[in-house]
Amino acid sequence: MKVIELKMTVTDSNDRDAEALRRELSERGIFLVNLMSAPGSGKTTLLARTVKDLAGTVSIGVLEADIASDVDAVRMAELGAESVQVHTDGMCHMDAGMTRAGLEGMEGAGFEIAFLENVGNLICPAEFDTGAHRNVMLLSLPEGDDKPLKYPLMFQRSDALVITKMDAAPYFDFDLEAVKRRASALNPNIRIFPVSAKTGEGMAEWEAWLLSERENDRNA
Amino acid sequence: MKVIELKMTVTDSNDRDAEALRRELSERGIFLVNLMSAPGSGKTTLLARTVKDLAGTVSIGVLEADIASDVDAVRMAELGAESVQVHTDGMCHMDAGMTRAGLEGMEGAGFEIAFLENVGNLICPAEFDTGAHRNVMLLSLPEGDDKPLKYPLMFQRSDALVITKMDAAPYFDFDLEAVKRRASALNPNIRIFPVSAKTGEGMAEWEAWLLSERENDRNA
Repeated sequence: MKVIELKMTVTDSNDRDAEALRRELSERGIFLVNLMSAPGSGKTTLLARTVKDLAGTVSIGVLEADIASDVDAVRMAELGAESVQVHTDGMCHMDAGMTRAGLEGMEGAGFEIAFLENVGNLICPAEFDTGAHRNVMLLSLPEGDDKPLKYPLMFQRSDALVITKMDAAPYFDFDLEAVKRRASALNPNIRIFPVSAKTGEGMAEWEAWLLSERENDRNA
Repeated sequence: MKVIELKMTVTDSNDRDAEALRRELSERGIFLVNLMSAPGSGKTTLLARTVKDLAGTVSIGVLEADIASDVDAVRMAELGAESVQVHTDGMCHMDAGMTRAGLEGMEGAGFEIAFLENVGNLICPAEFDTGAHRNVMLLSLPEGDDKPLKYPLMFQRSDALVITKMDAAPYFDFDLEAVKRRASALNPNIRIFPVSAKTGEGMAEWEAWLLSERENDRNA
C-alpha cells in the first residue's frame, strides 16, 4: 500500500479582504458566524432551531450559499429570519468577496448576528477566510467518528464543533469520546457541542456560547 | 429573499486525458468505476462489502483518494484488495492525470475492476472526467432527500445512484420515492440501488449491475 502526494497551488489575496470585512462588520455591530459541514449534516436544521430559540434575544440574518436551489433560504425566510441566497456557480467554497457581495444583498436589514451557511463541503471552505468572527463546523453522528483523521484542516480552522443528530446515537456506531479526543488533538481550543435540533439536547449550551462570543467581541 | 449568481471560470484540457486513459484501461482489461459522495456516506463500507462479496468472481483494486490519512486504504488492504492511497494535497477532486498517477502506483497488480474512491465531496468531483468507465454516486439516507435539488450536476453525471444506510430508514424522515423522482428528473438513465452494507439489503442488485456493465463494455 503506497501513499502518493499530489501538489496543489494555492492563491492568496483573500486574507486582507477578509480582515477588512471583519472590521467593518464589527463597526456595524454585526457578528458573523461561518457554518461549515459536509452536505446533509444538518446546518439548516440547526440554524432553524437556533433562529427560533433566539427570537426576541437577538436579530438574526442568514446568508445561504449553495451551488444550486434556494430551498434553504426559503425555509429561513419562513421562520422570519432575514435571508439571502447566494449561488456559487459550481464553486465549492465562499471567500471574503463573495461573502461581502451576499451581505450587501441584505443591506438595510437590521440584524446582530449573521450566519453564513457555507457550501456543504469539508474541504475547500476551510481554506478561505470569509471574514467571519467565528468559524463553526458541524459533524453529524451518521458521518462517523473518523472525520477528524480525514479532514484535519476543517477541525483546525474551527472555533467550535457542533456534533449534530445526537438523537440517532442508538442507531450508529459512533465513538463520541474518540471524536472529542481527535478534534482536540488537532485543535486544543476547539469547543465541542453535541446537540440534537430534533429533541433540543445541547442546544442551550451552543446558543449560550454564541451569545457570549458575540459579547466578548463587542467588548474587545 | 434574493438570489445572487457568482461566476466561476472553468479550465478544460482534462477531457482528452480522460478519454485516453479510458481507452488504455479497456485495452488492458481494467474496468474503472469512479465512486463519488459526500464525506461519511459510506463509500468505504460499500466497497468493503463489495470486495468481500465478489471475492473469487473478479479481482478488485482500489484507489483511495483523500486529502489526508490512509485509514481507508489500510482497511481495503486488510480485506485483501490491491489498494493505493492518493493524497490530493487539499484538492477536492480527482482528475484524469491524478487517476493515472494513482493507477500507476498499482502497476503490475492484476485486477479486473478498479474502484476510484474519490474525495468525499458532492461538488468538484462531478466536474472532472477521471477516465472511469462508469460514475457512481452514493447518497446516504441520513443526508436527506433534498440532495438532488442542491447538487444536480453530481446526479446528472452519474450512471448509478447507490442509496446507502437503508437500514437506518426507521430513524429518519427520508422520502425514497421523492429521491427517485428527483434523481430521474435530472438524469432519466440513472440506475438507483437502495442498499445496506450492514444487512446486505440490495447488495446483490448493485453487484450484478457492476458485473453486467463490465461485460457490456468488454463486448463493445
